[in-house]
Amino acid sequence: MLHLRINSDRLQTYLTELAQIGALEGGGVCRLAFSPEDKAGRDYVEAQMRALGLEVNIDPLGNILGLRDGEEEGLPVVTGSHVDTVRTGGCYDGSLGVLAGLEVIATLNDAGITTKRPLAVVAFVNEEGARFTPDMMGSFFHRGHLPIEEAYAIVGIDGTTIGENLKALDYAGTDTLPDFHRFVELHIEQGPILEQEELTIGVVTAVQGISWFELTIHGQANHAGTTPTHLRHDAGYVAGSIAQGVRRIALDLGERQRATVGSITLFPNLTNVIASKAVVKVDLRNPDNDQLQEAEARLHQLATELGEEEGVEITNRSLARIDPVTFDPAVIDAIDQSAQQLGYLRKHMISGAGHDAQIMGPACPTAMIFIPSKNGISHNTTEYSTPEDIEAGVNVLLHTLLRLADE
Amino acid sequence: MLHLRINSDRLQTYLTELAQIGALEGGGVCRLAFSPEDKAGRDYVEAQMRALGLEVNIDPLGNILGLRDGEEEGLPVVTGSHVDTVRTGGCYDGSLGVLAGLEVIATLNDAGITTKRPLAVVAFVNEEGARFTPDMMGSFFHRGHLPIEEAYAIVGIDGTTIGENLKALDYAGTDTLPDFHRFVELHIEQGPILEQEELTIGVVTAVQGISWFELTIHGQANHAGTTPTHLRHDAGYVAGSIAQGVRRIALDLGERQRATVGSITLFPNLTNVIASKAVVKVDLRNPDNDQLQEAEARLHQLATELGEEEGVEITNRSLARIDPVTFDPAVIDAIDQSAQQLGYLRKHMISGAGHDAQIMGPACPTAMIFIPSKNGISHNTTEYSTPEDIEAGVNVLLHTLLRLADE
Repeated sequence: MLHLRINSDRLQTYLTELAQIGALEGGGVCRLAFSPEDKAGRDYVEAQMRALGLEVNIDPLGNILGLRDGEEEGLPVVTGSHVDTVRTGGCYDGSLGVLAGLEVIATLNDAGITTKRPLAVVAFVNEEGARFTPDMMGSFFHRGHLPIEEAYAIVGIDGTTIGENLKALDYAGTDTLPDFHRFVELHIEQGPILEQEELTIGVVTAVQGISWFELTIHGQANHAGTTPTHLRHDAGYVAGSIAQGVRRIALDLGERQRATVGSITLFPNLTNVIASKAVVKVDLRNPDNDQLQEAEARLHQLATELGEEEGVEITNRSLARIDPVTFDPAVIDAIDQSAQQLGYLRKHMISGAGHDAQIMGPACPTAMIFIPSKNGISHNTTEYSTPEDIEAGVNVLLHTLLRLADE
Repeated sequence: MLHLRINSDRLQTYLTELAQIGALEGGGVCRLAFSPEDKAGRDYVEAQMRALGLEVNIDPLGNILGLRDGEEEGLPVVTGSHVDTVRTGGCYDGSLGVLAGLEVIATLNDAGITTKRPLAVVAFVNEEGARFTPDMMGSFFHRGHLPIEEAYAIVGIDGTTIGENLKALDYAGTDTLPDFHRFVELHIEQGPILEQEELTIGVVTAVQGISWFELTIHGQANHAGTTPTHLRHDAGYVAGSIAQGVRRIALDLGERQRATVGSITLFPNLTNVIASKAVVKVDLRNPDNDQLQEAEARLHQLATELGEEEGVEITNRSLARIDPVTFDPAVIDAIDQSAQQLGYLRKHMISGAGHDAQIMGPACPTAMIFIPSKNGISHNTTEYSTPEDIEAGVNVLLHTLLRLADE
């Protein structure tokens, strides 16, 4: 089995076909979670799973898992990722990890290989959290951390609930997915490091922690022309100052700290009316939990100071809080040895993005494989990885899964 | 005629009836320009004009003027304001000026008085600019500064054009409104000065200049978790820094300077995606044109510095630019003498808000009357002026118009 390799052409066909679902004019895709396009993407994966002879399971939130029997009974060694995207997303983030799993199964089918343990490919729903928060919802649900009725009641950015969308699209199933024996997720790096260092494989040893906050600033609407500066309670000024101020947090806490305001909504959002209300969403990340807590503390201090200065009330709500996760040494080692055996230049690294593997990590031995992202770009229609890097990554995945399934 | 007074009860009925059109739950009104509510508001004014025996004229943008003959032919002495509002507006801004005009006519009708010159009441369309920019559009059109075809093509915040809305609502007329001999606009102060100084009448001698800019920041969408700070081109950070930075302009240029960011729109506006684009609208005002130009220069310098620092392109577009206007000494004097004759405490002041009178000022001798705003609040559903102050202001308007129409 040492000379077994995946079929790069077939894999590229999978990628091309999935990229046509929710395709945006000029490139990229939009498959927001629980949208018709997302459902069509999952239907595509389901059809391929069935074509490969996998036993398809769909749970009440819509997570899908295709199971391939092993020589023995037991929990499966699982690979996979997600097929939902951000609004202007690329063709690789998530999709690659799911389709790589299908390609591994197809390669084993062609070679007539049955592993000792069962194998499975999973596509988790709503990893991005772009339409419904929190992100990584599918794996979070699978872990048992989100009651299904609570999930159904979550309201998205368009005012509809997950439950309504699942029902309208006939998206949910009735199966209970199995627990995982091991989990390996292949993903594009979504950062510039592998490309800059001219490496092919990232052996991911940990994922940074994530903390999302929604700050709501309650100011007072008033006339922009008549209200003297010192009498203002300007929610727009405070929102802007927070968006500006989180940059200081990132700079102060060092290069592993990320701090972003990607979403600001003002009310009534008119040129000549001082904003009465503002909603600001803040994304903080750090691989060190102490540092992440320090960043959170600084954010709250910034908000408190601005609120007092401007005479506005600021309420804050945690939208997501995921501790940093350290991956399993044995799974890391299986990836490392597979990459070495195949002769790829590699490095151990920390994931800057959140992934379903981060949620699964505390539940079963888990690790991730990264391949390079062109210019480090993702969550963008121009996201790209070369066919050669993709082929390398999926071959490393193939041999990692063989190692873990035959232990 | 020195003892002639308006009927406060009738005026309050006018105010109450108009406030029911576009009424918001919990108080205040929404009559965005060229909306069905705005049209209904104007229809109410038209019906009252006809009931008072005025000759109604409606021009192709929907401005409405009710004419009352004088003993002699000639251009009318005009009063009035507007009936459109911001999205969460009050019941007095604009409405009072139009309804006060109706009440003056009703008072003269009751007393059987015919003035030497004709009188007229005008309701200009789209003074607020909350749905279609620029603001003060009706008076601007009346001045001949806006070709009608250009006005019809203006696209509002909901993506529709003025032309489409006028047609759908049968809003436009075919009349040409007459030029004005004199123009007097009664308005709430929309600021805190009269209330704080316990005065009843503001004799408005000038209106500050207004400059609106729309800054569009072209950044790069990227992953909020993986993209190191120094590699970002973050349109959200720049937008926030502008909203924060304009406050500095206001503080540096002194208490007559206003600087506001009331509108920020980020794209794609998601928590975990660095914003690819931001649109920021800036409102600058100053009664001194040199200072207003200094504020504009500082805004452009701020944008240029931020753009270079963050590696983003910033384009800017002027949405409105109105020079400060100094009102006519003789009309100011007529107001001042009327207020003195009626025994009201008064002061000469500068308007912080933009008004149709500012547009008419350069075309004909013009001035304004202010009455107190409770807590200085306007552009807000809690906007309020007492019946006593309103009565005082309309009596000053009555006697000012009598002076000007009988010269």
